[in-house]
Amino acid sequence: MELDLQPLGLICTPHTELDQTPIQPCFAEGIRGEIHLDPAYAEGLEGLNAFSHVFLIYRLHRAEPGPLRVKPFLLDELKGIFACRYPHRPNALGLSLVRLVAIHGSTVLFEGADMLDGTPLLDIKPYYPKADRPDAAWGGWTEQLNPAEARRIGSRQKAGD
Amino acid sequence: MELDLQPLGLICTPHTELDQTPIQPCFAEGIRGEIHLDPAYAEGLEGLNAFSHVFLIYRLHRAEPGPLRVKPFLLDELKGIFACRYPHRPNALGLSLVRLVAIHGSTVLFEGADMLDGTPLLDIKPYYPKADRPDAAWGGWTEQLNPAEARRIGSRQKAGD
Repeated sequence: MELDLQPLGLICTPHTELDQTPIQPCFAEGIRGEIHLDPAYAEGLEGLNAFSHVFLIYRLHRAEPGPLRVKPFLLDELKGIFACRYPHRPNALGLSLVRLVAIHGSTVLFEGADMLDGTPLLDIKPYYPKADRPDAAWGGWTEQLNPAEARRIGSRQKAGD
Repeated sequence: MELDLQPLGLICTPHTELDQTPIQPCFAEGIRGEIHLDPAYAEGLEGLNAFSHVFLIYRLHRAEPGPLRVKPFLLDELKGIFACRYPHRPNALGLSLVRLVAIHGSTVLFEGADMLDGTPLLDIKPYYPKADRPDAAWGGWTEQLNPAEARRIGSRQKAGD
């Protein structure tokens, strides 16, 4: 079974080099991006401006599939591809939780841009604070990270080790 | 540009009827699901068991595309399709944040099953509490909901009004 998806628009960001792209929105504070949604979908944005944050689902269009065990950017140890957000993954789907700044027509301005310029957008979903903040969550290997070191690495590097 | 994606496995849940399926994992407490990952990807799960929660990205395989303005299940008012999680949406991608229970080989047991039985899985991403809990988040129209009424509706109804 193959599933055909169509880009709904493109995400424009200041990032053109893989190895200079932040690895998560939390390492891209203040970095703005713009979603240029296909105007045919503009009506679907109605009411979105009342939300503070949105999930973006997109295609990691320059990520080739790779091995199933990889070294996450923030760890010098092999982990399964589903135990990290490493981009070279089956189906190359990206997920970013970003802060909504403004909506003008079919253009959505956001902060926390951690994807490459020209990224094909597949969906926008609103963040529901009441539903999307599980209690007693535990982040596996990410709990061991030194925050300053993580910030240094995470804000610069997306591809390669 | 068309993007071909392949299911990585199937999600098995107790839900076979659209109108009896919870609309979000928070309305599916205690309801278990099983991901039957293609065994070829089992190695990719290494290290995932140390996480408490995971995002599942999947295809809403029984959701036909619909209008760009819809009535969300919990609101009697039209909103843009990108301002709610309504399943009949462009590209029919689903996103659920669920609680991980156990992993046995290529089978992943989780709690908070809000998708239909037989749903094609597209990706598993670990939940990072340090990155995925934005401060000062605001949930637009969802902030107005009466919690008891939301629970009554949300735990039963996914399709139709």
